[in-house]
Amino acid sequence: MQNKYSIILGNLGNTCDRFCKGYKSNPSTEEMLELAVKKIPYIEGIELVGTWDIRRDNVKEMKSLLKGYGIECSSIIPDTFTDKIYSGGSITSTDPKVRSKALDYLRDMSDIALEIDCKLLNLWLGQDGYDYMLTADYDQEREWLKEATLKLATEYPNLKFALEYKPKEPRNFSYHARMADTILAAKETGCSNVGVTIDTGHSFVGGENVSESVVLAKRAGNLLYHMHFNDNHGSWDDDMIVSSVHFTCYVELLFWLRKTGYEGWLSMDQYPYREDAVDAISESILWVKKYEQIVDQYFDEIESLIKLNNAVETSRFMRKLITG
Amino acid sequence: MQNKYSIILGNLGNTCDRFCKGYKSNPSTEEMLELAVKKIPYIEGIELVGTWDIRRDNVKEMKSLLKGYGIECSSIIPDTFTDKIYSGGSITSTDPKVRSKALDYLRDMSDIALEIDCKLLNLWLGQDGYDYMLTADYDQEREWLKEATLKLATEYPNLKFALEYKPKEPRNFSYHARMADTILAAKETGCSNVGVTIDTGHSFVGGENVSESVVLAKRAGNLLYHMHFNDNHGSWDDDMIVSSVHFTCYVELLFWLRKTGYEGWLSMDQYPYREDAVDAISESILWVKKYEQIVDQYFDEIESLIKLNNAVETSRFMRKLITG
Amino acid sequence: MQNKYSIILGNLGNTCDRFCKGYKSNPSTEEMLELAVKKIPYIEGIELVGTWDIRRDNVKEMKSLLKGYGIECSSIIPDTFTDKIYSGGSITSTDPKVRSKALDYLRDMSDIALEIDCKLLNLWLGQDGYDYMLTADYDQEREWLKEATLKLATEYPNLKFALEYKPKEPRNFSYHARMADTILAAKETGCSNVGVTIDTGHSFVGGENVSESVVLAKRAGNLLYHMHFNDNHGSWDDDMIVSSVHFTCYVELLFWLRKTGYEGWLSMDQYPYREDAVDAISESILWVKKYEQIVDQYFDEIESLIKLNNAVETSRFMRKLITG
Amino acid sequence: MQNKYSIILGNLGNTCDRFCKGYKSNPSTEEMLELAVKKIPYIEGIELVGTWDIRRDNVKEMKSLLKGYGIECSSIIPDTFTDKIYSGGSITSTDPKVRSKALDYLRDMSDIALEIDCKLLNLWLGQDGYDYMLTADYDQEREWLKEATLKLATEYPNLKFALEYKPKEPRNFSYHARMADTILAAKETGCSNVGVTIDTGHSFVGGENVSESVVLAKRAGNLLYHMHFNDNHGSWDDDMIVSSVHFTCYVELLFWLRKTGYEGWLSMDQYPYREDAVDAISESILWVKKYEQIVDQYFDEIESLIKLNNAVETSRFMRKLITG
Repeated sequence: MQNKYSIILGNLGNTCDRFCKGYKSNPSTEEMLELAVKKIPYIEGIELVGTWDIRRDNVKEMKSLLKGYGIECSSIIPDTFTDKIYSGGSITSTDPKVRSKALDYLRDMSDIALEIDCKLLNLWLGQDGYDYMLTADYDQEREWLKEATLKLATEYPNLKFALEYKPKEPRNFSYHARMADTILAAKETGCSNVGVTIDTGHSFVGGENVSESVVLAKRAGNLLYHMHFNDNHGSWDDDMIVSSVHFTCYVELLFWLRKTGYEGWLSMDQYPYREDAVDAISESILWVKKYEQIVDQYFDEIESLIKLNNAVETSRFMRKLITG
Repeated sequence: MQNKYSIILGNLGNTCDRFCKGYKSNPSTEEMLELAVKKIPYIEGIELVGTWDIRRDNVKEMKSLLKGYGIECSSIIPDTFTDKIYSGGSITSTDPKVRSKALDYLRDMSDIALEIDCKLLNLWLGQDGYDYMLTADYDQEREWLKEATLKLATEYPNLKFALEYKPKEPRNFSYHARMADTILAAKETGCSNVGVTIDTGHSFVGGENVSESVVLAKRAGNLLYHMHFNDNHGSWDDDMIVSSVHFTCYVELLFWLRKTGYEGWLSMDQYPYREDAVDAISESILWVKKYEQIVDQYFDEIESLIKLNNAVETSRFMRKLITG
Repeated sequence: MQNKYSIILGNLGNTCDRFCKGYKSNPSTEEMLELAVKKIPYIEGIELVGTWDIRRDNVKEMKSLLKGYGIECSSIIPDTFTDKIYSGGSITSTDPKVRSKALDYLRDMSDIALEIDCKLLNLWLGQDGYDYMLTADYDQEREWLKEATLKLATEYPNLKFALEYKPKEPRNFSYHARMADTILAAKETGCSNVGVTIDTGHSFVGGENVSESVVLAKRAGNLLYHMHFNDNHGSWDDDMIVSSVHFTCYVELLFWLRKTGYEGWLSMDQYPYREDAVDAISESILWVKKYEQIVDQYFDEIESLIKLNNAVETSRFMRKLITG
Repeated sequence: MQNKYSIILGNLGNTCDRFCKGYKSNPSTEEMLELAVKKIPYIEGIELVGTWDIRRDNVKEMKSLLKGYGIECSSIIPDTFTDKIYSGGSITSTDPKVRSKALDYLRDMSDIALEIDCKLLNLWLGQDGYDYMLTADYDQEREWLKEATLKLATEYPNLKFALEYKPKEPRNFSYHARMADTILAAKETGCSNVGVTIDTGHSFVGGENVSESVVLAKRAGNLLYHMHFNDNHGSWDDDMIVSSVHFTCYVELLFWLRKTGYEGWLSMDQYPYREDAVDAISESILWVKKYEQIVDQYFDEIESLIKLNNAVETSRFMRKLITG
C-alpha cells in the first residue's frame, strides 16, 4: 500500500474554545509550513484553509513555497465557518445575499485551487444546519444546498468537491451529518465530481462504524474522496491523537481503505488544544503508519477473518498485535 | 388532516428482556384483537407480526375476524428476529441455506399479505447486522441484502416493502440503521415499491431530528411508507408512551408529515414492559391525536415559524400550548 | 412557592465558539445590567462573572449600581477558565505556582463577594480535569482539589461555595462531573459551607435524571445550593432556551425543588449564540415560571402520582396540561 | 502483581434478548462448572448466580464440587432480576410484601455464602430503579434501599456486600447508576462491609473513565470490592470480549488497580450471545492477563507518565506496545 500522508496546516496554530480565546500563540502560515515540512514525518501534502492560509493575495507566494518544499496542496478548505456573516448558514442561509456571497467565495477558492494545482476542495459547511426544532424549513434549505453545490461542481468540472460531514458543532444539527445523508446530498446534485470526506472523529460521534461508511461510499460509486484522521472519547469531536482511545477500528479502517481501493490522501485533522502541535500530529501519522503496516503484513489474514464472522478468531488476531 | 391510526397487535402481549422471561401473561391473538378493537380509541388498522399473529394456517380466520371488526391489516411484520436460525442474519447470513430460507419466508408472508388485503410489509431486519468489528464483510452482506430485497419487491409488485431502520439491538450495528442509509438501501434495489418505516424512538436513538428524516424521505421520492410512534430517553429504544420525554419534536413531526403529504398509517409501537398495555397504547394515540389537532389548528402559524429561523418566536408559540 | 429568579449577566454579551470568535457585539457590564433589569421579567438577582463583571477596581461602582436597581448579586462566578494560565487546571494544576495563584484569585473573589453582600460563590472549575487517559494522577489532583476547596471554605465561613458540575468541556473529563461525585468532593472537605450547583443542561449531558439529583443532594444534607436553567438535545451543553427540547422533566424538577424545600435562586444560564439574548433569556424565565405555576396548582396531585408508580396516570396528568 | 481470575458461571449458559428467547442450549450448572475449570485459563474462582446455580437444595453438592476442583466461590450474585415479582423493584418496591420477600431472599443467599465459604455477595439490583419521570418517589425508595442494605450488612458482618452499578437496563434509570452515587449509597448505610463492584462495561455506558472510578472508590475508603470485565461500543452494555473496542483504558485500569492496592477478584462478565462461550470468555482472560503483564513490566514508566500530563509521551508509550 502506498498511502499519501498529509496534514491540515492550521492545526499547527492557535487553539481556543468558547471559554478561552487562545491556549497558544499563533505562528504565521509560512512558519507553520516550514515546521510541518521539516518536523512531521512522511507528509507529502498540506491542506490549506481558505482565507487564513490561502487568498488571492498570496496564491503565487504559496504556490512557490509549496513547490520549493516539494509538497502538494492536498486540499483547500474554504472558510465558511469563522465569519459571523455565515452564522445562520452559508449557501443555505435564508438571506439570498449571504447565499450569493458564499457561493462567490467558494468560486474564488475554486479558482485558487486550480491556480495552485490543488485537485480537491474539502467543503466542511459547519454553519449549514440549525439549532432549534421548528425554526428551519429543511426542505427549502436542502434545496439551496443542492443548487449551490451543483452550480459549483458544474462550473469547476476539473475539481473534486468533497463534502465533509459532522453530526453537530457549531450548529446543533448539521445538514451534512453522517456518511449516508451526505452521499444522498452528493447524489442529488447529479454531478460526478461531488463526493464525501470522512473525518474519523465525526464518524465516531455520529454512531457509525467508520469502516462501514467506507463501504457505503464505495457502493454509492467510489464517493470517498478524502480522509481526516483523529480520535475522541465517542460523544464529542475531541480531535485527539489517533489511537488515544480506539484501536481495533483503525486496523479495520485501514483494511477497508485498501480493500476498496481508496486512492486519496490520509490527512491528519487534530485540534491539539494543550499539546505541542508538531509532536501531537506526528504521533497521529506514526499511528496511522503503524496501522498501514499491520494491514500490509496481514491483509490476507484479515480478509479471511471478515468472512469468518467469528469474534473469537478476530480477538486472537488482534491480541497477537500486542507486545509481550 | 385525516390521519389513520393503528397499533401493533403484539404490543398487547407478554413483555420480557434478557433477564426476565416474562413480565406479563400472554393473551391469544384473538383475545388481543378483541381488546384492541374494543378498548383502544381511533384505531382503524392493526399490524400483525408474522408467525405469531398470522400464518398459513390462520389466514382465513384472521381475514374474517378483521373484516368482522371493520379493521384493516395496516402491515405485516415478518418475524426474522425471534428464531435462532437467524441469529447470524436472515437475508444477509453467510450461510446460503439461511438466506434462502429467509427469502422463502418473506415470500410466504407476502402471499399472506395479498390474501388478507394488506398492502404493506414492514421489514424490520433486526438480526441483519453485526456485533464486532473485523468480523463481517460489509460489502458482501449488503449485496445479499440488496439482492433479496430486490427479488422480493420484483416478485410482489402490488405490495409495498417498508424497511424499518434502527441503529442497534439486537445486533450492535444494524444494516438498516438510520433514515439516510436505509434510503440508499431502498434505492439500490431500483424498485419503486421499496421505501422506509420511521420508528420515532429508533430515530431518537440514532441522533436524528425525526422531522428532518421525514424531509429526507420526501426528497428521495416519497419514500416514507410507514410510521411507528413511541418515545424514549434518548440513548436506547425504551419504547415508552409517546410524549413521556419529548414534546416539541412531536409537534414538528406531525407538521412535517402533513406538509410532505404523508398518507400512510400512524401506528403505535410500544413495549409496555410493566404497564397495562391497553392503557399505555391508548395514551400514545391520545397524545398523537393531540399533536395532530395542534398542527391542524396552527398549520399556517407553524409554517411561518419554520421560515423565520427565530428560536424565540418558536418558543413563544410552544409556550402558549401549555395550560395556565 | 416564592421562587427567586436570576440570570448570569454575561449571557447578554458576545457569544463565540472555537471556530467563530464572535457572533455578536459585546456590550459593557453596565449596559448589560441595565438591559437585564429593564427588559427581563421577574428577576431579583444577577450572577456576576469574576474579572469580566466584577473586580477590585469596580466593586464599589457595581455595589452601588445593583443597589440602585434593587437587585441582589445572586452569585459570583470566579473566572478560572478563560485565562490560558489555567489551561492545565487551576487549583489542580501540577504546577504549584498556578495552584497558588488560583487559590489567591478565589480568595480575592470571596473578599469581593463579602463586600457586595453576595452570599454565594459558584465554582465552575472548567479547566480542572484532563483530556487523555494515562496523563493524570487522579488521586493527587483530587487531593489538591480537596485541599484548596477546604482552605477557601474555612477562610470564608460566611460564604457558601457551590461546586458546579459538568461532565466535559472544556476538558474531556471534568473532576466535578455529575451530582454524586460532586457531593463526594464537597463532603471530602468536611466543611458545612460547601455544596453543589445544578445546571440542568450539564445534568442532561451527564445522563442523570435531574430530579433524582435534587434528591441526592437533599439526602446528602441539603447540599443543593444553586440552580442554573437551560435545555439541550441531550448529548452536549447546547445552552438553549428552557423547554426547547424537554417538557416533563421540568415539571418534575420544579416539583422536587419545592418538595425538598430548596430555597436558593432559579438562575438562567444560557448561551444564545445566534438569538437575541434578552428575548431568549426572558423566554427561559417565562417557561420556568409556567412550570412553577403548574407545580403550585397541582402539587398534591403530583405528589400522589409519584407514589403511584403508574406511567399511564402520569401521562394522563401531563396530557391535560396541553391546550386543546 | 498476583491477580486472581474468575468468571461468572452463567455466562457459559444460554443467551437471549427481548426478541429471541434462546440463541443457545442451556447446559446444567455442573456441566458449566466442568467446562469452566477444564477449559478456561488461569481461573481460581467462580461466581454463582443465586437460584440458578446455588440454592438451599444444592449447597452441599456445590461446595463439594468446588472443593474437588480446588476452586473458590468468588461471589454469589443473588437473583432479584429474573422473577417478575420484582418487576417493580426488589428492596425498593412500593409493596412492603415484596420488599420483605426480597430481603429474606438476600438473607438466604447470605447464609448460603457463609456455608460455602464465599466471602462476598455481589448485589446487582437490576430492577431497583424506575422507567418514567414523575412515577417514583426517589427519596422514599432510596430510604428503603438504604434500610435493607443496612439490615443485611449488619446481620452478616462477616460478609462483604458489593453493590454493582449500571446506569440502565432493565430499568430506564437504576438507583445504583455510577460509581459516585453507589459510594454514597454504600456510605449511607454506615456499614464497613458495604462497597462497590465495577463492571467495566457499565462504567463505559455511564460516561465514566473507569480508572477514575477506581480512584474515587479508593478515596472513599477502599470501597472497591469486586471487578467485572467486558467491553462495549460505548452506548450500551454489549457485554463483549475485553479489548474488542477499547485498548488504552484497560492499560490504565490495570495500572490503577495495582497502584491503589486492589486485592479483589478480576472476574469476567460477558454475554456471548452468538459466540462460543468458553472461547469468548477465555479471550477476555487472556487480554486482561496481557494488560496485567504490560503493567507489571512498565509500572514505573506509567507512573512517571501520569505525573507528566503530556499526551504525546503517553501516545509514544502506547505505540511501542504494538507490534511491528
